[in-house]
Amino acid sequence: MDAEQLRECGHRMVDFVADYYKSIEAFPVLSQVQPGYLKEVLPDSAPRKPDTLDSLFDDIRNKIIPGVTHWQSPNYFAYYPSNSSTAGFLGEMLSAAFNIVGFSWITSPAATELEVIVLDWFAKMLELPSQFLSTALGGGVIQGTASEAVLVALLAARDRTLKKHGKQSLEKLVVYVSDQTHSALQKACQIAGIFSENIRVVIADCNNNYAVTPEAVSEALSVDLTSGLIPFFICATVGTTSSSAVDPLPELGQIAKSHDMWFHIDAAYAGSACICPEYRHHLNGVEEADSFNMNAHKWFLTNFDCSLLWVKDRSFLIQSLSTNPEFLKNKVKASQSSSVVDFKDWQIPLGRRFRSLKLWMVLRLYGVDNLQSYIRKHIHLAQHFEQLLISDPRFEVVTPRTFSLVCFRLVPPTSVQDNGRKLNYDLMDAVNSSGKIFLSHTVLSGKFILRFAVGAPLTEERHVDAAWKLLQDEATKVLGNV
Amino acid sequence: MDAEQLRECGHRMVDFVADYYKSIEAFPVLSQVQPGYLKEVLPDSAPRKPDTLDSLFDDIRNKIIPGVTHWQSPNYFAYYPSNSSTAGFLGEMLSAAFNIVGFSWITSPAATELEVIVLDWFAKMLELPSQFLSTALGGGVIQGTASEAVLVALLAARDRTLKKHGKQSLEKLVVYVSDQTHSALQKACQIAGIFSENIRVVIADCNNNYAVTPEAVSEALSVDLTSGLIPFFICATVGTTSSSAVDPLPELGQIAKSHDMWFHIDAAYAGSACICPEYRHHLNGVEEADSFNMNAHKWFLTNFDCSLLWVKDRSFLIQSLSTNPEFLKNKVKASQSSSVVDFKDWQIPLGRRFRSLKLWMVLRLYGVDNLQSYIRKHIHLAQHFEQLLISDPRFEVVTPRTFSLVCFRLVPPTSVQDNGRKLNYDLMDAVNSSGKIFLSHTVLSGKFILRFAVGAPLTEERHVDAAWKLLQDEATKVLGNV
Repeated sequence: MDAEQLRECGHRMVDFVADYYKSIEAFPVLSQVQPGYLKEVLPDSAPRKPDTLDSLFDDIRNKIIPGVTHWQSPNYFAYYPSNSSTAGFLGEMLSAAFNIVGFSWITSPAATELEVIVLDWFAKMLELPSQFLSTALGGGVIQGTASEAVLVALLAARDRTLKKHGKQSLEKLVVYVSDQTHSALQKACQIAGIFSENIRVVIADCNNNYAVTPEAVSEALSVDLTSGLIPFFICATVGTTSSSAVDPLPELGQIAKSHDMWFHIDAAYAGSACICPEYRHHLNGVEEADSFNMNAHKWFLTNFDCSLLWVKDRSFLIQSLSTNPEFLKNKVKASQSSSVVDFKDWQIPLGRRFRSLKLWMVLRLYGVDNLQSYIRKHIHLAQHFEQLLISDPRFEVVTPRTFSLVCFRLVPPTSVQDNGRKLNYDLMDAVNSSGKIFLSHTVLSGKFILRFAVGAPLTEERHVDAAWKLLQDEATKVLGNV
Repeated sequence: MDAEQLRECGHRMVDFVADYYKSIEAFPVLSQVQPGYLKEVLPDSAPRKPDTLDSLFDDIRNKIIPGVTHWQSPNYFAYYPSNSSTAGFLGEMLSAAFNIVGFSWITSPAATELEVIVLDWFAKMLELPSQFLSTALGGGVIQGTASEAVLVALLAARDRTLKKHGKQSLEKLVVYVSDQTHSALQKACQIAGIFSENIRVVIADCNNNYAVTPEAVSEALSVDLTSGLIPFFICATVGTTSSSAVDPLPELGQIAKSHDMWFHIDAAYAGSACICPEYRHHLNGVEEADSFNMNAHKWFLTNFDCSLLWVKDRSFLIQSLSTNPEFLKNKVKASQSSSVVDFKDWQIPLGRRFRSLKLWMVLRLYGVDNLQSYIRKHIHLAQHFEQLLISDPRFEVVTPRTFSLVCFRLVPPTSVQDNGRKLNYDLMDAVNSSGKIFLSHTVLSGKFILRFAVGAPLTEERHVDAAWKLLQDEATKVLGNV
């Protein structure tokens, strides 16, 4: 690590990256390689002698990039987006440069304090209740992913409940989710030792864009109470993965409150939209939440990973997740006092990167007004795509569009037996195999559905139009094969 | 995200970072700010309008850097190191540029395949048994931290055991560690629901540099078996956090084997040294391990986070950690077949960064020979520091030095009552408050001990000599105050 060598190589990498972005539309969005392709072209052991940067760049161009699926391509419409941006990229660079391991305050006070400040900023942008601010009993923390956010919330809830009922009661704890809740919750339950038969999966309402109904939750809950079980956790979603459904927060919050349960809100994707006043109403009811999560790394120009979690009472997190070995105690007056936050006790790992830098830079270099415009632009493009779909009777919009996701499919001719599954699979396969766009699918009420999620930073109207043209052309072909 | 804007800003950030490294010795190693310092100088809400990059750089210089503890400073000797390097930095840049979320093969085949290949390379460098290779039933995976590595190993072991004994047996499962095992294991137990009274903390042998004795483990295990408990997990450490002790792997492995227990080896720090033939013997016994972990982000020039975990039988990990929702299924022939790895099922989170890039670049741009020299140089510097200590009778080396960590203290004068605790605390506080070096402490057998861990990439003999001079000078002062 020589400063001048770093400078020279760093400049070369910046040019490489800028050139990559300049030519990003030339690559197939979805990588078209076959399994095992890389093993064929790389040696089977590490080199003994150093290689040159030139040769490394050659390998990146010729061997790595063909195996990359280009999430930053303007023609990427799969899953939900994963935004990069100049500000986010600069933040990652600076974080890699300091390369601190910020488990406690003293390991870099700026890392902890900037995180506290920026999460408070963000809470205010979202108009979260003041209890979620660091100045009250709550506070925000950056997790790696929404999976980790829901896991630490579940652990805090589990331990809060077991403290009351005794730890032998683990087998009685019941979690309430819908069949649209992200699989991260199921995984969190597996990890936390919640019995699989105690994960109550309530079927969401297909007449209400697959939001859960409070009645269905109440009903399941009554049965469990009668059986002597202990309901302790409800997870609601604002913007489900399949169809961007919004669960009824106020009602679910009331149920949680009246049974002394933990109420978690997963707004991983749609939380970003709620910085716009016209979408904020989707968070009404967050007042009742114990924890709230959104991913700045999805649709908020902040490079992956950066998942924001707020809790109303931080003491429950800390009780579940703290350890305090001598070798990590900071014998410095400042952190000996209880005046500082040690984020190691708010998360699964011990070590943590300086992730608040990139979020701070995104907010500073773009500003709230531009960030709102950014969200609105994508929602507008999704509306545009929806109109295009409506104009072609061969297609149908399957669920109402709420944010920037459009769920649609080719309407199966009556001659088709499998409810259009093969037809739509073939359409998806055709467009993805073309390398021109990438979209993903889901299944709702037995229907195989295509998902068109607008949210890549470079996507413009012309990309949406081209995607539509491609879908129309391929539709003609697959319908011709029926 | 405009390619030319990225280029311009990226070049400016490269220069900023190179200048930072050039002047890194000018900053106090340990940040000297007071709690709450940053709140005083930042606004209390996010800006509505964008700010300039110039103003951002000013704030980084004037507000952020004073709160940074400089882990990359050549005068950093605290905890264990966290290495940055040109290669690691370039890897972080490229990973941030692609900004993929590589949960499954199809989301970027190169990310999964490069990880498989590079972990196989590394396993061969460490001469791990062939069962740990991807070509056998095992394989390697990059976790964020050693905490996550031991957690996923513990979960796999827990579920393997519960499958045999029934899930009601959770309360009977017993974990064996020493009082020198990293606190990450205790945290993993809290998360996995292992009962705290079933964490058997065996006191390590103070006559053998605080390695655990197999006899002590066997003894505890016999008592537990008699009580009807189920021993299921042993964690051994190669290079403990306090004193770099090495537990007796072959004997502990035998105990685990004869009781059908999971045997995990934590070589987070010292694993790096074992790429040198003369240190490889510390891993003898790894043949018996079910899982083995080392942190490339500590002492291997790979930026944080990059913790390498190998397992002998990947199926146990996958059984514990997989979920398979429709919206993540890849309807592509390739990944529908079982020929590909989906790393989401080997870890806690769903999403994952393209971390294999930086490790690949470190191996490619430095080569194994240079990496071995790098390790040897630090160990040589630690030996040098040890000799300096021995030359001054006011100091004592408290435990034998095995790798690049030296544990020492000022010998307390007979008039001192607290076994030298205050004296050594005052010495540490004096050198750390000077800003000239940063070191941390531990407590062993009631002794307050200073830890001098050599391992920052820029550390040269002159830095060790200057640190020693500072310690001698401050020792004279604190001894004068006794």
